[in-house]
Amino acid sequence: MKIAIIGASGRMGRQLVELVAESTDAQVCAAVTHKASPALGQDVGLYSGIAELGVTFTDDVQAAAKAADVMIDFSLPAALADNLIAAGQQQTPIVVCTTGLNQQQHADLKAAAGRTAVLYAANTSLGVTLLLNLVRTASQALGNRCDIEILEAHHTAKRDAPSGTALALGEAAAAGRGQRLSEVAEYQRNHNDTAYQPGSIGFATLRAGDIVGEHTVYLVAGGERLELTHRVASRKTFAEGAYNAAAWLKGQKAGFYSMNHVLGLDA
Amino acid sequence: MKIAIIGASGRMGRQLVELVAESTDAQVCAAVTHKASPALGQDVGLYSGIAELGVTFTDDVQAAAKAADVMIDFSLPAALADNLIAAGQQQTPIVVCTTGLNQQQHADLKAAAGRTAVLYAANTSLGVTLLLNLVRTASQALGNRCDIEILEAHHTAKRDAPSGTALALGEAAAAGRGQRLSEVAEYQRNHNDTAYQPGSIGFATLRAGDIVGEHTVYLVAGGERLELTHRVASRKTFAEGAYNAAAWLKGQKAGFYSMNHVLGLDA
Amino acid sequence: MKIAIIGASGRMGRQLVELVAESTDAQVCAAVTHKASPALGQDVGLYSGIAELGVTFTDDVQAAAKAADVMIDFSLPAALADNLIAAGQQQTPIVVCTTGLNQQQHADLKAAAGRTAVLYAANTSLGVTLLLNLVRTASQALGNRCDIEILEAHHTAKRDAPSGTALALGEAAAAGRGQRLSEVAEYQRNHNDTAYQPGSIGFATLRAGDIVGEHTVYLVAGGERLELTHRVASRKTFAEGAYNAAAWLKGQKAGFYSMNHVLGLDA
Amino acid sequence: MKIAIIGASGRMGRQLVELVAESTDAQVCAAVTHKASPALGQDVGLYSGIAELGVTFTDDVQAAAKAADVMIDFSLPAALADNLIAAGQQQTPIVVCTTGLNQQQHADLKAAAGRTAVLYAANTSLGVTLLLNLVRTASQALGNRCDIEILEAHHTAKRDAPSGTALALGEAAAAGRGQRLSEVAEYQRNHNDTAYQPGSIGFATLRAGDIVGEHTVYLVAGGERLELTHRVASRKTFAEGAYNAAAWLKGQKAGFYSMNHVLGLDA
Repeated sequence: MKIAIIGASGRMGRQLVELVAESTDAQVCAAVTHKASPALGQDVGLYSGIAELGVTFTDDVQAAAKAADVMIDFSLPAALADNLIAAGQQQTPIVVCTTGLNQQQHADLKAAAGRTAVLYAANTSLGVTLLLNLVRTASQALGNRCDIEILEAHHTAKRDAPSGTALALGEAAAAGRGQRLSEVAEYQRNHNDTAYQPGSIGFATLRAGDIVGEHTVYLVAGGERLELTHRVASRKTFAEGAYNAAAWLKGQKAGFYSMNHVLGLDA
Repeated sequence: MKIAIIGASGRMGRQLVELVAESTDAQVCAAVTHKASPALGQDVGLYSGIAELGVTFTDDVQAAAKAADVMIDFSLPAALADNLIAAGQQQTPIVVCTTGLNQQQHADLKAAAGRTAVLYAANTSLGVTLLLNLVRTASQALGNRCDIEILEAHHTAKRDAPSGTALALGEAAAAGRGQRLSEVAEYQRNHNDTAYQPGSIGFATLRAGDIVGEHTVYLVAGGERLELTHRVASRKTFAEGAYNAAAWLKGQKAGFYSMNHVLGLDA
Repeated sequence: MKIAIIGASGRMGRQLVELVAESTDAQVCAAVTHKASPALGQDVGLYSGIAELGVTFTDDVQAAAKAADVMIDFSLPAALADNLIAAGQQQTPIVVCTTGLNQQQHADLKAAAGRTAVLYAANTSLGVTLLLNLVRTASQALGNRCDIEILEAHHTAKRDAPSGTALALGEAAAAGRGQRLSEVAEYQRNHNDTAYQPGSIGFATLRAGDIVGEHTVYLVAGGERLELTHRVASRKTFAEGAYNAAAWLKGQKAGFYSMNHVLGLDA
Repeated sequence: MKIAIIGASGRMGRQLVELVAESTDAQVCAAVTHKASPALGQDVGLYSGIAELGVTFTDDVQAAAKAADVMIDFSLPAALADNLIAAGQQQTPIVVCTTGLNQQQHADLKAAAGRTAVLYAANTSLGVTLLLNLVRTASQALGNRCDIEILEAHHTAKRDAPSGTALALGEAAAAGRGQRLSEVAEYQRNHNDTAYQPGSIGFATLRAGDIVGEHTVYLVAGGERLELTHRVASRKTFAEGAYNAAAWLKGQKAGFYSMNHVLGLDA
């Protein structure tokens, strides 16, 4: 499998370069970065801190799309439109891992899905994908028989709190019992002398050390509870998830896909 | 809702008596025990350590079935045949919580389900019921991408290890990825100088204090993992599960049901 | 051991009555309540939901002190002065479990300790007592090598957050590394777009179901961490702690003691 | 601080090279390997997968000891005697992280401690060092009031079970309440139809994925419990512990030290 990596000079891009280089089933056929990148022209392997790969950084996404069986995009939202055009014209499946997209960019994804296979994943972790499904199922089954709380822990450099994944878990929990998260989310359990609101979903945040990312959803009924936890020990996990998504997407027809498809879950 | 409790003088029966007595939606209309029980003729409330209920223990399960909207059976396997006959003749739905049934008794359950609504639950915990489903889903989605281990903790008086629930979780995990538990279960991770068998499902057991029951299923992939935990803090949970099952079963037509139905999960 | 229970008609008092009644080493010799209590004159056992004990509620704390080997006070702060006078005059050791004392009442405790053995415990759990010690030791040993966060979970009826025990754990953690908690506590990790303050101690709160009380202190260094957790499954634990304290205090000379002494830890 | 690393071409040695290279307070002044190593003469940085360091591998441990402020030994037991002779002759403090020493080698350590500062650490994790202390304290304080169980989880390539650290935790727990581990250890809680032995310490083992190492000691009393957990996310933790030990040892006089000294704990 020939993989073109877009945003290959960034932190996640380099993780992915390293992972594909170690793989026996795939190779990096192109590494795209932006026009002003100091990485342009350098060897992708050396730049990523591993052995020379014989592939140099380029800003030609069209050529990359042409050369590749599948593309993985870890670049920025501003580059998305061009990346999708290239994927569409070359009918090259593309896994998009960019976060922080606006409405137009989400629409662009759907439009491109008319021409090639597009898989969008804000979080490529298979475990998080699965946990979102389990939480929705559990919340739907237990309904108002349980109280739901969500705990997340990350490293001290993370500024946004709760994490995007914690909020997505909250959406899943709320959807499972027919709520809208915005109407039931409670972010201030501490120092909050108001009575507990039945049906509320509370968020709690820990920040410490170099924790990559941990989430637990508590579903607490009378005398019993479920605690559904996901832990990531290494950012490599996100590269592996993107790689798994690419491997799955390679053979698919045009359409819009998610990590749920990779896991064979209902979309 | 008028509930007849069979096996009402036992530990779980008394828990159930207490729970129904506290309920505003239901009442104990009959409490059945065996012919030799010293409880016969005594007040069910006083016997259970709560206020007088005005209902005395009886050994007439037919009369109990006639008086009840629904029956809950926490008695012993030997009494099952008679209980099912009474439920069938009176077309009274029955929740059966008896464990350790033989093949004939399982067949009796199915036969009775032709005449009335029969719900069989070896473990009435809603949380365990749900966890079994989540584990099967997770195992199926992750397939051979993850290793699975199961930990259980119980009080020191519990002799069988791993617990029946841990084994059921193992069955769910194995089924999810198309295995038979008997072929992949590993009970001796300690002091076992053989290499790890890929695809094996290991069980670990803790025994300490008065822990009512805790189970965790670990699904561990490269760099990430899910930990799916269930904790019971009180045996009252099992009484509540039986009560929930009875409330659900009351309006159902003849047929064979499980706790999955109570939670709206696929059976 | 003859135990007088003050505040015996309250929730914790009745737990204690039940515990002592089950004990083979101790008996309830007096049960004190306030002058306006409807329990006055009633049998203590029946009132607590167990068998008749042959002891009726009284408001005579002097007589109770005289009859007892040791007293346990689960009443309210307003009664403390009289209770201490009785204990001092009769030289009866007293375990005081009352919370929310003011400065005068704390001074009263110290004064009474000149006449008899006084043990003050805002939280009688042996596990919490021990955890406070472990957290202080761990914080002192790791110093600024680690980040510290504290998580607590309680039932939905609990209004104060973080819990008093979580704050006490924070005090222990801060003291261990020479900080004052008031200067480093962070209660708003959620929705707080300020940078992480090195040396801060964050609190996170969960409220769900009927959780009796759980606390975890995270000490997170680069690549490794300690998680020190305490779980209470039943309020009976607090009664047992008070009973253990009374058994330890019975033989002690006049002085001021804490739960640390019961555990043989440095005070 | 000039550090000589012995066993620098091995897995832990390279981790340590990388760590010291990133440090602003220390530098690798010598990297020792064995006479037959293919690394001899190569640049230590390039060999470790980082930038060139300008230091080449040597087999001259005497010269290394002379050049260094402190030495860290991650080599094999067979090299220990020579390493200690060099450290002693040059009066260079040495941190020894070699495992699997025999009695003679332990005696050599003590002898060398007469001439220079020697710190021996079978596990350099600060967290594990601390946990061993906490467990002993907790076990001593709770005595026979609690049951103790130990859970460990590691990657699937680990053959020995329970882990050495789990056994050390068991020793600490046993010592805390005056037991010998060999007399109370229970490795077969699964499939073991014998009654629970009060005072026994049970071990449970999980093997899955790439878990670096996790240990939990459960201390369970009636209705409450402590769970004392240590998690390592990366092997870098062990390099950091060795580095911390070296920084502490540098200024010390001749003597025998342990990781407890680095943490300021009673030895």
